[in-house]
Amino acid sequence: MRLGRLNHIGVATPSIANSIAHYRDTMGATQITEPFDLPEQGVKVCFVDTPTDSGMNGTQIELIEPYDESSPINGFLAKNPAGGQHHICFEVPDIAKAREDFETMGKRILGPTRIGAHGTPIFFLHPKDMQGILTEIMESPRADH
Amino acid sequence: MRLGRLNHIGVATPSIANSIAHYRDTMGATQITEPFDLPEQGVKVCFVDTPTDSGMNGTQIELIEPYDESSPINGFLAKNPAGGQHHICFEVPDIAKAREDFETMGKRILGPTRIGAHGTPIFFLHPKDMQGILTEIMESPRADH
Repeated sequence: MRLGRLNHIGVATPSIANSIAHYRDTMGATQITEPFDLPEQGVKVCFVDTPTDSGMNGTQIELIEPYDESSPINGFLAKNPAGGQHHICFEVPDIAKAREDFETMGKRILGPTRIGAHGTPIFFLHPKDMQGILTEIMESPRADH
Repeated sequence: MRLGRLNHIGVATPSIANSIAHYRDTMGATQITEPFDLPEQGVKVCFVDTPTDSGMNGTQIELIEPYDESSPINGFLAKNPAGGQHHICFEVPDIAKAREDFETMGKRILGPTRIGAHGTPIFFLHPKDMQGILTEIMESPRADH
């Protein structure tokens, strides 16, 4: 295992529309993707792009809003009604290898490997095994992020 | 205001030593700075570098451990004994201008502008005005980050 790119930080919000306005109007974000539904994950999603020295390919802010009453982020929002930092996501070159590596290290994996918001396979690791942080591992997109 | 580089995410930990071992051994981080004390902020600090497509200048993970019993992160760790995501930090070109802009927008600023872990001026914004996220604003280092 070699530390990969910090693809995004996941930020839960009760309202993606309000959060988009915040990042656009208060923080001055210039690139925010259109929100879309990810019903399998129980969330609506969009990404705020951040700049690097060489472009807009910095770590993204992933805004997530509950998709319905059974959304896995409802519990988080009950505790944090204004929203807040929900998870962090690192890229790996090979998701199957990464899953095997974390299993070998005795880290608890939450559910099956599935397709994430970027269209590549992902899984989540239990925060209790990850220094208190819900951690997503995603396979790097082959072409552009 | 134009959204700047996501310099780091701040991660509180009860033990920087254990967190360094986690990022090195579990996550495979290859560049982690030596921890140092920042008594004015009440924390011990070190940075885990993350890769980008073109180097190791990605968004850093800032590990922070309480410096003493009066540390401002003791409350967070009382609620989150394993540690967790504490704040996020965006760069700006001019800290005085940024402070003025946030004040004009009615955002509550926590305390005076002071020197942060990267040696440049910083201030913090109240999470209640920032979508539930304690937000640090830092002036970009002039040369290398």
